[in-house]
Amino acid sequence: MPVKVAINGYGTIGKRVADAVAAQDDMRVIGVAKRRPTYEVRTAIGKGYPFYTITEENRADFKRRGLEVAGLLPDMLKEADIVVDCTPEDVGAENKPLYEKAGRPVIYQGGEEAELVEASFNAAANYKEAWGKRAVRVVSCNTTGLCRTLFPLYRDLGIEDVFAVMVRRAVDPQDAKKGPVNAITPALKVPTHHGPDVKTVIHDLPIQTMAVVVPTTLMHLHAIQVTLKKDVSAKDVIALWERTPRVRLVDGGEEVKSTSHVMELARELGRSRSDLFEIAVWRDGVSVVGRKLYYYQAVHQESDVVPENVDCIRSMLELETDPLRSIAKTDRGMGIPAPRK
Amino acid sequence: MPVKVAINGYGTIGKRVADAVAAQDDMRVIGVAKRRPTYEVRTAIGKGYPFYTITEENRADFKRRGLEVAGLLPDMLKEADIVVDCTPEDVGAENKPLYEKAGRPVIYQGGEEAELVEASFNAAANYKEAWGKRAVRVVSCNTTGLCRTLFPLYRDLGIEDVFAVMVRRAVDPQDAKKGPVNAITPALKVPTHHGPDVKTVIHDLPIQTMAVVVPTTLMHLHAIQVTLKKDVSAKDVIALWERTPRVRLVDGGEEVKSTSHVMELARELGRSRSDLFEIAVWRDGVSVVGRKLYYYQAVHQESDVVPENVDCIRSMLELETDPLRSIAKTDRGMGIPAPRK
Amino acid sequence: MPVKVAINGYGTIGKRVADAVAAQDDMRVIGVAKRRPTYEVRTAIGKGYPFYTITEENRADFKRRGLEVAGLLPDMLKEADIVVDCTPEDVGAENKPLYEKAGRPVIYQGGEEAELVEASFNAAANYKEAWGKRAVRVVSCNTTGLCRTLFPLYRDLGIEDVFAVMVRRAVDPQDAKKGPVNAITPALKVPTHHGPDVKTVIHDLPIQTMAVVVPTTLMHLHAIQVTLKKDVSAKDVIALWERTPRVRLVDGGEEVKSTSHVMELARELGRSRSDLFEIAVWRDGVSVVGRKLYYYQAVHQESDVVPENVDCIRSMLELETDPLRSIAKTDRGMGIPAPRK
Amino acid sequence: MPVKVAINGYGTIGKRVADAVAAQDDMRVIGVAKRRPTYEVRTAIGKGYPFYTITEENRADFKRRGLEVAGLLPDMLKEADIVVDCTPEDVGAENKPLYEKAGRPVIYQGGEEAELVEASFNAAANYKEAWGKRAVRVVSCNTTGLCRTLFPLYRDLGIEDVFAVMVRRAVDPQDAKKGPVNAITPALKVPTHHGPDVKTVIHDLPIQTMAVVVPTTLMHLHAIQVTLKKDVSAKDVIALWERTPRVRLVDGGEEVKSTSHVMELARELGRSRSDLFEIAVWRDGVSVVGRKLYYYQAVHQESDVVPENVDCIRSMLELETDPLRSIAKTDRGMGIPAPRK
Repeated sequence: MPVKVAINGYGTIGKRVADAVAAQDDMRVIGVAKRRPTYEVRTAIGKGYPFYTITEENRADFKRRGLEVAGLLPDMLKEADIVVDCTPEDVGAENKPLYEKAGRPVIYQGGEEAELVEASFNAAANYKEAWGKRAVRVVSCNTTGLCRTLFPLYRDLGIEDVFAVMVRRAVDPQDAKKGPVNAITPALKVPTHHGPDVKTVIHDLPIQTMAVVVPTTLMHLHAIQVTLKKDVSAKDVIALWERTPRVRLVDGGEEVKSTSHVMELARELGRSRSDLFEIAVWRDGVSVVGRKLYYYQAVHQESDVVPENVDCIRSMLELETDPLRSIAKTDRGMGIPAPRK
Repeated sequence: MPVKVAINGYGTIGKRVADAVAAQDDMRVIGVAKRRPTYEVRTAIGKGYPFYTITEENRADFKRRGLEVAGLLPDMLKEADIVVDCTPEDVGAENKPLYEKAGRPVIYQGGEEAELVEASFNAAANYKEAWGKRAVRVVSCNTTGLCRTLFPLYRDLGIEDVFAVMVRRAVDPQDAKKGPVNAITPALKVPTHHGPDVKTVIHDLPIQTMAVVVPTTLMHLHAIQVTLKKDVSAKDVIALWERTPRVRLVDGGEEVKSTSHVMELARELGRSRSDLFEIAVWRDGVSVVGRKLYYYQAVHQESDVVPENVDCIRSMLELETDPLRSIAKTDRGMGIPAPRK
Repeated sequence: MPVKVAINGYGTIGKRVADAVAAQDDMRVIGVAKRRPTYEVRTAIGKGYPFYTITEENRADFKRRGLEVAGLLPDMLKEADIVVDCTPEDVGAENKPLYEKAGRPVIYQGGEEAELVEASFNAAANYKEAWGKRAVRVVSCNTTGLCRTLFPLYRDLGIEDVFAVMVRRAVDPQDAKKGPVNAITPALKVPTHHGPDVKTVIHDLPIQTMAVVVPTTLMHLHAIQVTLKKDVSAKDVIALWERTPRVRLVDGGEEVKSTSHVMELARELGRSRSDLFEIAVWRDGVSVVGRKLYYYQAVHQESDVVPENVDCIRSMLELETDPLRSIAKTDRGMGIPAPRK
Repeated sequence: MPVKVAINGYGTIGKRVADAVAAQDDMRVIGVAKRRPTYEVRTAIGKGYPFYTITEENRADFKRRGLEVAGLLPDMLKEADIVVDCTPEDVGAENKPLYEKAGRPVIYQGGEEAELVEASFNAAANYKEAWGKRAVRVVSCNTTGLCRTLFPLYRDLGIEDVFAVMVRRAVDPQDAKKGPVNAITPALKVPTHHGPDVKTVIHDLPIQTMAVVVPTTLMHLHAIQVTLKKDVSAKDVIALWERTPRVRLVDGGEEVKSTSHVMELARELGRSRSDLFEIAVWRDGVSVVGRKLYYYQAVHQESDVVPENVDCIRSMLELETDPLRSIAKTDRGMGIPAPRK
C-alpha cells in the first residue's frame, strides 16, 4: 500500500513535488494546500489532486472563483503519513508547531535553517542520515547542485579545498515583480552561507563560496575550483560524473553554450514543465591544471531538489535501505535517465 | 493512407511542426532536414524521425559527432507528398527552385515575402484560399495573432479601423547572442509591415501598426484599438472570443499578470515544450469606450503558427473541405482545448 | 534677491531639481531633506546644499555615518519661500498638512493625485494656470512627454483623436530590486490613467492610452497615433517640433536606433548626470497617412520633469509672466539648447 | 610645448581618451578619426576636435550628412607625435603596417594580442616597461581591474595564489544589438585568458581565472580569492587600497549594493559621461579567513583604461619618469580624487 503524502505549498517546488510523488508506485498524493486561488489551482484540480487551503477566508476566495476545496490544512494533515512543506522561506519554521501537533513527520525545503531539523539531506551524499527521522531538510537548489558534483570527487578522489562562485538567477521565470533589471548584485556577507550549508550534508568538506545575483531567470551557474588529493585528468573526472546519477554532461560543441540552451535541451527531452532535474556540467568546460580542477555547472533552481524530496520520503519512512535503489526508482518514475554503468 | 510530410529546417518552428504533424492520423513525418549537428538533432533522432542534412560536408560533420543521417535534402523531397519549409528568413526563397525541381507543393513560413507564393494563410480566416495550391505561406507569428482575434470581430461586428502596437520580444528563449540587453528599439519604418501583412489574409481590413523591440524572450504583446461598426459591450466581445478556436482568455485576477505568467500557465497545462499555441487575451484588460474596443493579447512566437501549418497541409492537399473540422482535428491531436460552443 | 527654494526628498527627482534650481539666477537652494544617509547624501553635502532630515532617529543615523545635518524638515520649511516635494508617490499627500502648517506654497510631483492641488502643470501648455497658486502638481514624466509633443499639434493643427501606447521602463537605472527580469506586463485597467492625466493640462484633448512595462531601465517609449484636423506632411510636423522647446529630433540614420543610443547621445552632450531633459522624437519615424500622424518618442523618466519644476516655481511665485521667457531662462541655466526660430 | 596625440577610432574608448588627453596640459588632441558619420561625430566636432575619416567613400558619407572632415587617416598620422589606436578588436593589428609606414609610436588597446607589441602596460604596476617604446598595449578593462587591486597586495604582502571569477557585462550601455537577453554564458576555454593576460604586466603572479557573460550593460564584477603570503586583517587590506590610486572603496551600508548603485554614484560625482575611472571595491565585502582574502570589485569597462592610456603616452614619450607623478597628474586633469596618504 503506497504511503500517503501531503504537500503544503503549491508554488514552484510544491507543484513539482506533487507530480513527482504521483509518478511513484510506493507513494501517493493525498492532498495539496495553497493559500490563494491562482491559475495554478485550476490545473492542479484538473490533475485530480485533493485541494486544501489555509483559512476560512481563503476558502471563501476560492469559492468566489468557482473552486471548491476539500478542506483546510489540518484536515489534510490528518490524512497523511508524511508532509512535505513547500511554503516560502521561513514559513516552514512558522508551520512547525502545526505539524508537531498533527504528529506528522515533515520534510522542509532549503529556505529553512539547518537548526530547525534533525538532518539535512542529499540522496547521494547522506541518504542514511534521514533514516526514520521526524524532521528533515532537503538542502537548497544551489547546495544540492554543489553536493551532486562534489560528493563523487570527495568520495573517490579526496578534496583538499573548494572555492565556488555562484552566479545566481534573479528570479524564477514566472516572477514579474522582482529584479534586478540591469545590475549585478554581490552577496556582501563573505564567504557566503552556501559553503557552511554544503557542510550540513558533507560534513568535513573544506569549501568557501561567494555569490552574485544577475538579471536572468533560467538557471544558476557555478564556476568552481577544486583542489583534489589525487592526480587525475579532466577525462577521468568526466567519466566519474557520467557514472553519477542526476548529473548530465552537456557539450558546447553541440551548441549548448549558455543556460538558455541547457533549458532548451530540457524542452526537447519532453520533461514535465520542461524541467531539468539533473545538474548540467559542460564537458568542454572541465579542465585540470596540476591538482586543480575547474568546471562550470548549471542548476535548474525550480526542479533539481524535486527528486531529492522523493528519496527523502523513502528514507524517513524507511521504505528503502539502499540510496542508489531509491534514486534509480525515483528517476525511473520521473523520466530521468540512469547514469552510465 | 496518411500523406507524407517532409520538414526542411529543424529549428524553433520546424521541430514543432514535426511533432504536430506526427500527432495527426491523416499525415506522417517522412523526414526532417537540418544543416548542423546540434543537441536538438540527438533528441529528434531519439523520436524516430528520419534525419537528413544538406551537403556532403554537413553529413561528415554529423558523422564526426556519431550521428548517421538518412540522406541529403533531395533524397527527402523525393519521398514527400508535401514539404514544409521551416528554414530561416529568406532561405525559403532560395530553396524555391529546389522544391520546384522536385515537383513538390510547399508551405513557407511568415519570414518569406507574400510575393513568393500563391496565397497567404490563416486557418480560421481564409482556409479555402490555399485549396489545391502549390505554394502557400503561413503568415508570421504576429500576423497570425492579429488574424486570430480580429477575424471574428471583422466577420461578426464589422471593423472600421484598427491600430495595433506590437511590443516584440527580442529573441527566442534559447538565443544567447542577440539583444538588446537594456533598450527599447522602435521599428522606424512607420506604419510597419504588419498591417499590410494582415491584409494578405483579411484583404480589406483597415489596419495600421507600429512596433518596438524589448529585452525579453517569452512572448510578443499587442496593445490594440479597434473601431467597431456595431455597438457591443466588452462582455459580448469576450463571449465571441470564447467561442473562437485558438484564442484563450486569461485572468489578471487569477494572477496571470504578465507574459511570464502566461508561459507558466502553459507549463502547468503540460503542453509539449511548454508551448502555448493559442493567443492569450486578458479578460480583465478588454474595454469598450463608445465603439472603440481596447485589448491586450500575448503571442507565443515559437508556437502559435504551428497548428496553422497542419491545417494548411490539409487545405493544399485537399484532405478536408471544412476549415472548422480541420482546426478541430488538428487541435485534438495537439492537445489544444476546443472553444466553448 | 533670489527666491528661496527648499526641496523635500533627495531621490531621482529631488537631486535633479536641486541642481536645476541652483543653476538659475533668480532662485537658490536653501535646503534639501532626505530620510536616509545614502551615498547620495555625501555628494550633496559636497555640493554645499544645507542638508536636513526627517526625524531625530534619522539624524542619529546620519551622525553614525559621520554626517552632520542642518536640522529637521520643519526647520527647513521655515527658511523657504516655496517647497518642492520630491518624496515618493503618495508621500506628498501625507506631507500636505505639514506644508500647510508651515504656510508654504508647494509643488508636488506627478505621483500625487490631481485632486490634491489647485492646478496641474506643464510649462508650454498651461503656464498661467499655476500663477499665484499655493499647491500645484508638475505632471508625471509620461504625461509631460505627451504634453510636450501633443500641445503644439493641438494648438496649431487641431487634434481629433489620440491613441498612445506607452512602453514603460521597469525601474530607474540605479534600482536593483524591482523587475520584471524577463516579462512584459500590461496595465490591465484600460484605457489607462495617462489619458485623463494629460487632460488635467490640455483639458479638452480627446486621448486614450494603454501601457505595458518592459524589462529596461533607460527610458519610456511612446508609439502614438494622432488624427489631425488639418492636412499636413510629416515634414511640416517635424518643422513644428523643431521650433518647440524641450523637444529634440533624433535620427535613426545617424545610428540613434534605440533608447540606448538616445541616452548615449545625452552622455556625449555632457549634461549633468548624462540626463536628457528634452523629449526625443525620431525624425525618420514620423509618418503621415491621410490625416493620421504616427510617431515614436522617448521620455527620460529621471529628468524630463525637472525644468518644468523650475518654471512652475516662477509661475507660482509670479516671477515671470511669459511662459516662453521662463522656459528659455530655465533652459539656458540647464544647458538645454534653444529651439530653432 | 604639448605633445601631439592622434586618436584612431572614436567609439567607447576613443572618445574618452580624446577627452582625457584634452584635459592634460602636456599633451593635446591633434585629430580623431572614425569611419562612419554617427551622432557621436557631431558632438565631437562641437568640441573642436579635428575630425578625420578612413576612405574617400567614408568622406562622401560624412559630406552627405553635412559634416566636413579635415582629411583621411594618413593625413592625421603625419601631424602626430603618437597615435592611440582605439579601433575595434583585431583592427589594431590590421592598422599596424600603416602606423609603421607613418613612423609613429602607437598605443594599442587590450583587444589586441600581447605579441603585437613590445610591452603590455598598467601605470601602477609596470610604468617603466613602456619607457621609450614604439608599440605598447594598454591591457583590457578586466585585466586593468585585476592589476589595480592585486598589484599592491603582490608588492606589499606577497601572493601565493589567485583565483578570480569574472562576471562580465554582456555589452556596453549603448549597444542594442547583442545579447544575451536571458541567459548566462560561460567562457568554456578554461582557465580563461585573463590570467595569462595579467601576467603580461605582473609577470610572476600565480593566477587562474574563469568567466561568464550575463545580461547587463553597466559593469563587470569580479569575485576574487587571494591566498596571501602574510597574515593580515581585512582592515589592513582596506587601508592599503585606500592608499592606492584609482581604487575606490564603496559601502553596501550606504546603499551601494549593486553595480547600478556604483554607476549612480559616478553620476552624482559629476564625472564626464558619468564614468567611473576607478575600480570599485566593496568595503563590507572584504573578508580574510586564515591567509585567504575574499573580495568583490566592479570594473567600469567603458572607462577604467582611459587614464592608463594617458600615462602610457607619458612613459612612451619619456615625459615623466615617476609613475606616481604621472598618475597624479593624469587624475588631477580628469577629476579623479587622489588616494589617502
